[in-house]
Amino acid sequence: MEGREEDVRLGANRFSERQPIGTAAQSQDEGKDYTEPPTVPFFEPGELSSWSFYRAGIAEFMATFLFLYITILTVMGVFKEKTKCPTVGIQGIAWAFGGMIFALVYCTAGISGGHINPAVTFGLFLARKLSLTRAVFYMVMQCLGAICGAGVVKGLMGKTRYGLLGGGANAVNPDYTNGAGLGAEIVGTFVLVYTVFSATDAKRSARDSHVPILAPLPIGFTVFLVHLATIPVTGTGINPARSLGAAIIFNKDKGWDDHWIFWVGPFIGALLAALYHQVVIRAIPFKSK
Amino acid sequence: MEGREEDVRLGANRFSERQPIGTAAQSQDEGKDYTEPPTVPFFEPGELSSWSFYRAGIAEFMATFLFLYITILTVMGVFKEKTKCPTVGIQGIAWAFGGMIFALVYCTAGISGGHINPAVTFGLFLARKLSLTRAVFYMVMQCLGAICGAGVVKGLMGKTRYGLLGGGANAVNPDYTNGAGLGAEIVGTFVLVYTVFSATDAKRSARDSHVPILAPLPIGFTVFLVHLATIPVTGTGINPARSLGAAIIFNKDKGWDDHWIFWVGPFIGALLAALYHQVVIRAIPFKSK
Amino acid sequence: MEGREEDVRLGANRFSERQPIGTAAQSQDEGKDYTEPPTVPFFEPGELSSWSFYRAGIAEFMATFLFLYITILTVMGVFKEKTKCPTVGIQGIAWAFGGMIFALVYCTAGISGGHINPAVTFGLFLARKLSLTRAVFYMVMQCLGAICGAGVVKGLMGKTRYGLLGGGANAVNPDYTNGAGLGAEIVGTFVLVYTVFSATDAKRSARDSHVPILAPLPIGFTVFLVHLATIPVTGTGINPARSLGAAIIFNKDKGWDDHWIFWVGPFIGALLAALYHQVVIRAIPFKSK
Amino acid sequence: MEGREEDVRLGANRFSERQPIGTAAQSQDEGKDYTEPPTVPFFEPGELSSWSFYRAGIAEFMATFLFLYITILTVMGVFKEKTKCPTVGIQGIAWAFGGMIFALVYCTAGISGGHINPAVTFGLFLARKLSLTRAVFYMVMQCLGAICGAGVVKGLMGKTRYGLLGGGANAVNPDYTNGAGLGAEIVGTFVLVYTVFSATDAKRSARDSHVPILAPLPIGFTVFLVHLATIPVTGTGINPARSLGAAIIFNKDKGWDDHWIFWVGPFIGALLAALYHQVVIRAIPFKSK
Repeated sequence: MEGREEDVRLGANRFSERQPIGTAAQSQDEGKDYTEPPTVPFFEPGELSSWSFYRAGIAEFMATFLFLYITILTVMGVFKEKTKCPTVGIQGIAWAFGGMIFALVYCTAGISGGHINPAVTFGLFLARKLSLTRAVFYMVMQCLGAICGAGVVKGLMGKTRYGLLGGGANAVNPDYTNGAGLGAEIVGTFVLVYTVFSATDAKRSARDSHVPILAPLPIGFTVFLVHLATIPVTGTGINPARSLGAAIIFNKDKGWDDHWIFWVGPFIGALLAALYHQVVIRAIPFKSK
Repeated sequence: MEGREEDVRLGANRFSERQPIGTAAQSQDEGKDYTEPPTVPFFEPGELSSWSFYRAGIAEFMATFLFLYITILTVMGVFKEKTKCPTVGIQGIAWAFGGMIFALVYCTAGISGGHINPAVTFGLFLARKLSLTRAVFYMVMQCLGAICGAGVVKGLMGKTRYGLLGGGANAVNPDYTNGAGLGAEIVGTFVLVYTVFSATDAKRSARDSHVPILAPLPIGFTVFLVHLATIPVTGTGINPARSLGAAIIFNKDKGWDDHWIFWVGPFIGALLAALYHQVVIRAIPFKSK
Repeated sequence: MEGREEDVRLGANRFSERQPIGTAAQSQDEGKDYTEPPTVPFFEPGELSSWSFYRAGIAEFMATFLFLYITILTVMGVFKEKTKCPTVGIQGIAWAFGGMIFALVYCTAGISGGHINPAVTFGLFLARKLSLTRAVFYMVMQCLGAICGAGVVKGLMGKTRYGLLGGGANAVNPDYTNGAGLGAEIVGTFVLVYTVFSATDAKRSARDSHVPILAPLPIGFTVFLVHLATIPVTGTGINPARSLGAAIIFNKDKGWDDHWIFWVGPFIGALLAALYHQVVIRAIPFKSK
Repeated sequence: MEGREEDVRLGANRFSERQPIGTAAQSQDEGKDYTEPPTVPFFEPGELSSWSFYRAGIAEFMATFLFLYITILTVMGVFKEKTKCPTVGIQGIAWAFGGMIFALVYCTAGISGGHINPAVTFGLFLARKLSLTRAVFYMVMQCLGAICGAGVVKGLMGKTRYGLLGGGANAVNPDYTNGAGLGAEIVGTFVLVYTVFSATDAKRSARDSHVPILAPLPIGFTVFLVHLATIPVTGTGINPARSLGAAIIFNKDKGWDDHWIFWVGPFIGALLAALYHQVVIRAIPFKSK
């Protein structure tokens, strides 16, 4: 009975109808038999000789490239105007980030899993859903894609103007302490990675059901919402590749001083989300083998 | 023929094709046999020894925590600026509330039913879809989560600034009477809980169909829309946990004076929605046993 | 072979794979056998003694009531402020109209077909998808609901302020001629009713498929989009019940002068959409019996 | 084994569970047997005598007509006001373009494939998914529809005012070089056509699955997002019919000078997207015959 989703030790959950109160779209599948997929080994030599491995890396590169291109160009367009009224506004920036994640996860989910974010890759690696080799490869490709995406925007804008407008680089707003910025990055990434786990777990547990169709939508919305909340705090990272790409192309001290926050925060947030989902929600460590 | 959805006494509804005019996504299932789920007893001793019961409470706590964190932080970001143009604006606040409900209902529906709101829990309890024990447990966890969520925002912002900006607490706008504020809360919660009933009823009546996939989306949209309409009236509660959390952390007389409105209004709204759905739409009291 | 979807006379359409270029979600069902539903007779005496007939009318009343309540209250909130920046803005108004249609069509589709608009009812009646009795009953209930919804907003706002802010009544902007206003209403309603026909036709032709799930979403979006375009022209009617409700509760000459435009325009638009869909797209008059 | 989706030469991809990390909605179908549809010949004499061929052209005409009508009217409404605050704003314009594509692709997908854009038609033609005859016919109908749509807006606005407000014509912003404008059009169209390929490929590979339901949504979102980013650069074309229609009806030198950019850019972007999808993602040239 390895990995079956049951309260084996408590046994009192007789009425399966009771749980799906509200809009329990997923739980009706909980009574079904399904097995947790086996954890992926750290090193999987075979995948290095598979074309689908490299294709996945290329897809991550391309997706992160397009992500940075569209979002940083949107940021530039808003910051170019002194008053924000004749622009798409800060809300438009939040839509650009969230919407691109929605569209790109939709496009690349079947090729690479649609991470487009080292923090997501890190969270899924912690849950042992991809090998260390693949995780590192994805992160490298994401960072390269982000650098190229921001670079193309700099090319379009011209070097001087790009620099004056801040280059879309993340930094903690002077109104907030670095601790507050770090906290905002941790909780923001937690929201995102928790949603990713919920969406992909639903898929897994209901492989022949139709729940995953919506998966890219809540993931994209989460990115949008975290931007609504934390653009005034840190400009919103929650994606180390996005922060790195903008910092490298902007390349001024101002962009580098707080840069560690945009790696440490997202990775801690992803770690906490993985713990919450795997331990509290799925109770995987307590499952009877 | 207990609980079968038919016009047993009238019998003239021969042409089942006639009803689904327009976009009757759900009604094609009306001819099918299905049984109303049995009402849940007030006390279900068994569930207290089930891990899934406590897990559901933790999920409600966590969801309400994240809900308040993102939404109140968004409110603070908008109120910090004198002109609203360089912010996500009031519309951005409405998106934060509605979007978070969409994402969180999606994430927690399979774990706890995705209430995240004592008024929703109350409405579903009235329809006897969860036990009194569970309803009270959920409400307590929701309120605790809301307090923690608002508290973290206060921590990030600093005490003084959080107080100056109003702390996201609900209050009736001086342009409106308390009666108008109460009315706005009642109708607003009615819209929300009516949508919840429609979405979950569709699910129930079409258990093996795919209608529920969309359920979190209209529910989240409803929250967004009620905010568009009533932010100028009461700041929009329609969720007693959200109002309580902000009031406790803000903790000034201004936040407490009208506080009863944000409990009485939503509970009346939920009661009316439960009545409308169960009596008028489902006609459950008139069903032939 | 009554009503089968084929080019019977031309016969050259051998490669059914050719058509679903692009994103032909629906056409893959075109090769399947399905029969057009029989047209509904003008008078169906049986339905008058069916509870589901009256329940559908109540649902239309309630939906139009909530539609006017939320949308007119949103309009009032925006118009109350001299500058629009500290409000949800004109775009927020468009979201309120479109979003409510999305949520309400989702909620009432299975009960009444989710019209919430006399022009939609008229279009579907022209396509003989509901009886004359039902069409008239729906329109009356929609108008009553709209009047009540606008009335409650007036009650909340107070009579004087409601009057000063224009009461959400439709009128042709002085920058445009009445002819331009009529044209805008015709094309706007055409877009809406054409989408309704596309969405419900898809459903019909693929009864056991899953396309209808999305139906309320494009319909709601269409309403949103028409508002984006024509709020500066006529305030956007495309729904005679909405225009009538606001005009009756506002009740000033200004609201009545152009009122005919908001009945004639939408009905012509619905007529053209029904013609376009039934004759050009479905080619129903040319089907071999 | 013609066209089967496998790493035939590498063979190491044993664990099909490994790839759908993240939200791999589509990849679970990759193990299934399916055949690439045969490429469409350049000339298909049969289709010229099929009513569905002409109906598809009419649907493309009508969709592009409604697309230009709603979007250009929205642009005019925003530009009419000196400050953008009492309008739907630049973000509202982006919603109009993206939302209309969503709704129209939903409506016409089953009739014509829902292109509504010569660049999309060109990209799908390059992938040999429609005949040259059909591609040319679609493009002509799209351009005619766009001209009529912009013409109706000019009629509503009056000639003088339409001219003063720029007529919604595309032009490279003087802040940018022509090269930058061309680049923005190329990458923007790449994002759109890449999404179209991803959405329709998913459909193809999972014909009896339910993934395509969402297809119009990411496609519409992509159009929205590209507008957020590039309205400040070129006004955003990425659709030669839209640019041509506005240019012809506006008909001033200013609208014609850069016009070549809005044909060359989108066609190059579509070419690159077709190459990327067919060669890198699908690896069609390397498939074992």
